[in-house]
Amino acid sequence: MFTREQNEILTRVGPGTPMGDLFRRYWLPFLISSELESDGPPKRVRLYGENLVAFRDSKGRVGLLSRYCAHRRADLFFGRNEECGLRCTYHGWKYDITGKVLELPAEPDDSPLLKEVRITAYPTREAGGVIWAYLGPSELEPKELPQFDWMHVPDTHRCVTKRLQQSNWAQAVEGGLDSSHVSFLHRTFTSVQQQVTTKEGHLVQRPIYMVKDTKPRFFIHKTDYGFMIGARRIASDTEYYWRLSQWLAPSFTIVPSSEGRPITGHVWVPIDDETCWAYTISWHPDRPLTKDEYEEYGGGEQIHAAVDENFRPHANKDNDYLIDREMQRKENFTGIVGVGIQDMSVQEGMGAIVDRSQEVLGLSDTAIVTWRRMMIEGAETLKTANETPLGIATPRAYRVRSGAILLDKDADVFKIMMEKLAPAFA
Amino acid sequence: MFTREQNEILTRVGPGTPMGDLFRRYWLPFLISSELESDGPPKRVRLYGENLVAFRDSKGRVGLLSRYCAHRRADLFFGRNEECGLRCTYHGWKYDITGKVLELPAEPDDSPLLKEVRITAYPTREAGGVIWAYLGPSELEPKELPQFDWMHVPDTHRCVTKRLQQSNWAQAVEGGLDSSHVSFLHRTFTSVQQQVTTKEGHLVQRPIYMVKDTKPRFFIHKTDYGFMIGARRIASDTEYYWRLSQWLAPSFTIVPSSEGRPITGHVWVPIDDETCWAYTISWHPDRPLTKDEYEEYGGGEQIHAAVDENFRPHANKDNDYLIDREMQRKENFTGIVGVGIQDMSVQEGMGAIVDRSQEVLGLSDTAIVTWRRMMIEGAETLKTANETPLGIATPRAYRVRSGAILLDKDADVFKIMMEKLAPAFA
Amino acid sequence: MFTREQNEILTRVGPGTPMGDLFRRYWLPFLISSELESDGPPKRVRLYGENLVAFRDSKGRVGLLSRYCAHRRADLFFGRNEECGLRCTYHGWKYDITGKVLELPAEPDDSPLLKEVRITAYPTREAGGVIWAYLGPSELEPKELPQFDWMHVPDTHRCVTKRLQQSNWAQAVEGGLDSSHVSFLHRTFTSVQQQVTTKEGHLVQRPIYMVKDTKPRFFIHKTDYGFMIGARRIASDTEYYWRLSQWLAPSFTIVPSSEGRPITGHVWVPIDDETCWAYTISWHPDRPLTKDEYEEYGGGEQIHAAVDENFRPHANKDNDYLIDREMQRKENFTGIVGVGIQDMSVQEGMGAIVDRSQEVLGLSDTAIVTWRRMMIEGAETLKTANETPLGIATPRAYRVRSGAILLDKDADVFKIMMEKLAPAFA
Repeated sequence: MFTREQNEILTRVGPGTPMGDLFRRYWLPFLISSELESDGPPKRVRLYGENLVAFRDSKGRVGLLSRYCAHRRADLFFGRNEECGLRCTYHGWKYDITGKVLELPAEPDDSPLLKEVRITAYPTREAGGVIWAYLGPSELEPKELPQFDWMHVPDTHRCVTKRLQQSNWAQAVEGGLDSSHVSFLHRTFTSVQQQVTTKEGHLVQRPIYMVKDTKPRFFIHKTDYGFMIGARRIASDTEYYWRLSQWLAPSFTIVPSSEGRPITGHVWVPIDDETCWAYTISWHPDRPLTKDEYEEYGGGEQIHAAVDENFRPHANKDNDYLIDREMQRKENFTGIVGVGIQDMSVQEGMGAIVDRSQEVLGLSDTAIVTWRRMMIEGAETLKTANETPLGIATPRAYRVRSGAILLDKDADVFKIMMEKLAPAFA
Repeated sequence: MFTREQNEILTRVGPGTPMGDLFRRYWLPFLISSELESDGPPKRVRLYGENLVAFRDSKGRVGLLSRYCAHRRADLFFGRNEECGLRCTYHGWKYDITGKVLELPAEPDDSPLLKEVRITAYPTREAGGVIWAYLGPSELEPKELPQFDWMHVPDTHRCVTKRLQQSNWAQAVEGGLDSSHVSFLHRTFTSVQQQVTTKEGHLVQRPIYMVKDTKPRFFIHKTDYGFMIGARRIASDTEYYWRLSQWLAPSFTIVPSSEGRPITGHVWVPIDDETCWAYTISWHPDRPLTKDEYEEYGGGEQIHAAVDENFRPHANKDNDYLIDREMQRKENFTGIVGVGIQDMSVQEGMGAIVDRSQEVLGLSDTAIVTWRRMMIEGAETLKTANETPLGIATPRAYRVRSGAILLDKDADVFKIMMEKLAPAFA
Repeated sequence: MFTREQNEILTRVGPGTPMGDLFRRYWLPFLISSELESDGPPKRVRLYGENLVAFRDSKGRVGLLSRYCAHRRADLFFGRNEECGLRCTYHGWKYDITGKVLELPAEPDDSPLLKEVRITAYPTREAGGVIWAYLGPSELEPKELPQFDWMHVPDTHRCVTKRLQQSNWAQAVEGGLDSSHVSFLHRTFTSVQQQVTTKEGHLVQRPIYMVKDTKPRFFIHKTDYGFMIGARRIASDTEYYWRLSQWLAPSFTIVPSSEGRPITGHVWVPIDDETCWAYTISWHPDRPLTKDEYEEYGGGEQIHAAVDENFRPHANKDNDYLIDREMQRKENFTGIVGVGIQDMSVQEGMGAIVDRSQEVLGLSDTAIVTWRRMMIEGAETLKTANETPLGIATPRAYRVRSGAILLDKDADVFKIMMEKLAPAFA
């Protein structure tokens, strides 16, 4: 039984909360690189409940500052991004990407404020097509970003999209850990979704196993970065069909895909307690993505979502995700188009912060139960024992993939897959 | 003087409140029958502050369940209504209309959850063109629905509409009890609204009495179902013009109409403390409604309102009820079209929950004062003495009508009308 | 350092707050005269957090009453404005402009309520194209309105507009006191804004001084009505360029304009703690405004704003004030059109109520610091010592103007300007 107190600890990420402190120890993406151009418009950023503004300066460096000018708290979103600094429009105070004030044009030249004024600024880095932020204590800033596989491919091999989700980040992550829902929420009645290669080398339709055995058993294998989830389905008298997903602390996942197809991962980034960004990254380790693949991702029919200029999906909470009851009867399980939007419909439908004390969990929730316990323990041992959070010390362990495989029943799946899914560093 | 504490007791209907407990002992309509079709889309229902979902199963039976799946609280509104059950889209858990889980397709076949899981489900019935719900203790469920006259006519003799009202239910009921406002709020300067037959058999325009004597005196006659309100106006030296309305516990009314015309009643059903459904039922005991009458009701010019697909009136709070100040000067008292919308303009205008401690009541508020006292007493004696609420034991007493009549000053109006307005059961 | 407690005192104006009590001792404008016509539609008014309704009766007098009928609290905005009274649409209770009930048509003729019932009514006056209200204790009502110069010119010499501002009134006033921001927020790169006459009689472009010396020093000169702010810029080795603004208690300002052009003043009227009306008054003491001037003010390119029928600017918070980043790069400092809208962008951007305890003030904030101290002292001495607030006793002192001038460095600017800017009463 998950208590309301535990639910509070799990979900709240504002300044000073246990989970907020935990998140602040990790590097997380907060913008897609293309959202900022040198000397271009600043962007509003909200992260873990803090109001910030981001800009890319004349040298291409990204600043992530307090939203409000130190002087009289005008909104720096309206600021001028000029010559390596962001200038407030009210009285022209200008800041560099470290938050240091560079000019106070309305104050005397010898103003002591020139040395004193500094606004909150967080370090940023850029890799894998996204911009990362670290909001924790500066002396504890991890030297290396988590080395995701999708950061180690050329830009042509990768597609990153994001969408606004109107729910707490944790119920979004839980959807990503929950391999069991795929057989239901994402089921289609008419089309083939994915394929898997048998050990004899034949292409087999994934739905065969997914629909035939809707009761997978789940096995958790803890790792340096988080854990692997093995969803085991009966394929035949002698074989299991395994789908292996990855959870990477604190809120990254990689979901299994068919052989030969791009791999897909997610990051859920808390905007505040009631909204989060869902980043979706598809990449192919060995080849550029095709034009068809880019079009598919942009079109939102699959795991990426079609969004407006503010990254809000066209199909959303306010229009019941454009549910089509006729489609629900005849074509798919939900009447909703797109894997990402289907996920949103159940995750947002629970309310902004689901009350986990009201749940009835089953065997299919194994990964979720483990994850909740690890997250709460992580937040608590950070608070009480200042223990370095999971994964921080081993950024290179993050370079893993996901996969699906048919194996003999007695094979050691995690051993086999750990090697198969973790490409060596060059 | 009505205190703020009394106002809280009168208005709040959420789970565990005194008035909420009282309402939960009655059957009340919550949907129009045509809103649900067999195996069709589920409908969101909110009743006394509880979030529910309704569906009509393959056998035509109506289920009224908790909005949230027992498992991980996905919204069952998005569920699949299939083969006598509502199935959650997240992991396929399926419930019947009693709330019992029928299938747990992601759990092992021998899962103990299969016997244990049950979500909140409330009994429903169907009569009079609407679907009724009972949300109280199951051992106290009244065997018979209140036997309204409009349930005893063929469907062709009846028209039921509903509209969303953005105010507490009680200020809506009070509008229904308040015969005195008809001379003002609903006054038109140019047209004839209703007619009444004199005892000599002549048709007389209602406005003659209504406008001539704007100061009716009110008399209350308590009954097994609630009370009759007699509004007495002076018609001549020897005669009174009486309009008799009915209040039927807890929130039903029947308003007087002219002879020969359909009778109209209301039900105000609390959605939560700040919104309610206003059902309007017009019926003729003896003949089908005419095409003109149906058109009039649908058009919203009279007591029924023209609404959008969510039953929100086109003229509403956000557009000042489409008030036309020129019309207000020349054609009617409000510049607002439609009796129902005129009512909304004053009842919503008070704010979501009017502060009754600020009122100055007059003689015209006699019925309202009595009603408030009875409702609060009912809620309190239910709580303290577990006394069966008014009307529950006498469902057949609800078969009454309303009327208007000219009588000699010394006639016993309630005796005469009680016989005239209560048709015997066949 | 300004504390959070001081910030609460400064900003809150609801009934019973120290600053609310202070404001209630002054006459302030609440409508433009043309918003009300005799026997025309009532207008909703919200002032210092109180819900009111205004109407102009058959004799042209303006009533400002409680929004809610004394009887059952129907909204008098929907009322009938008829024959020297406002009549509630619910039961026809009718009030005159003093709040006295005139008719109770649904009550007996001898009802004691007829003598007893009275709703809150506040005195109003009309002058200078606006309607003024006094919400304080009636025995302390100032006999004379503050005698602004713009009340002493014919209507043809004056233009009054207003716009809704979605921020606390105090951060709006502070923008008006803050002469220093003009060099930044309102800077244009391409066009000439204003001109000033040198003592030799030559027209000089204001931007020369404004842009050349962006670090004016500020001097405060206290007066009977508030204070004068002298912003001193270096013009040459021997001369200063002075711009003199006026603050007139509690929330009026007059800003400097170029010689020969109309003068402009503001009033910020608290609607509640999070919104205010910004009135802008431009007038010429000696001649009618030209057609071009009226068009300019209505077009909203300068200090007046282009608004919708509810006086909300077309460029507002929800559309980021129509910011154009290309314009911001090339044409002006903000990319936002119009002085008034530029002000709104910074003042609303701070949030509804800015947290002044987070500020870092500089020398350019001299006037603001003085003003805050005077306002808080005024509120506190009113509360503790019942001291008559600043300016109340000297309404004729309010007849002052603003101005800009070039003076020798040793000239006594306040002495010179006090005479120049305060026209004698006729």
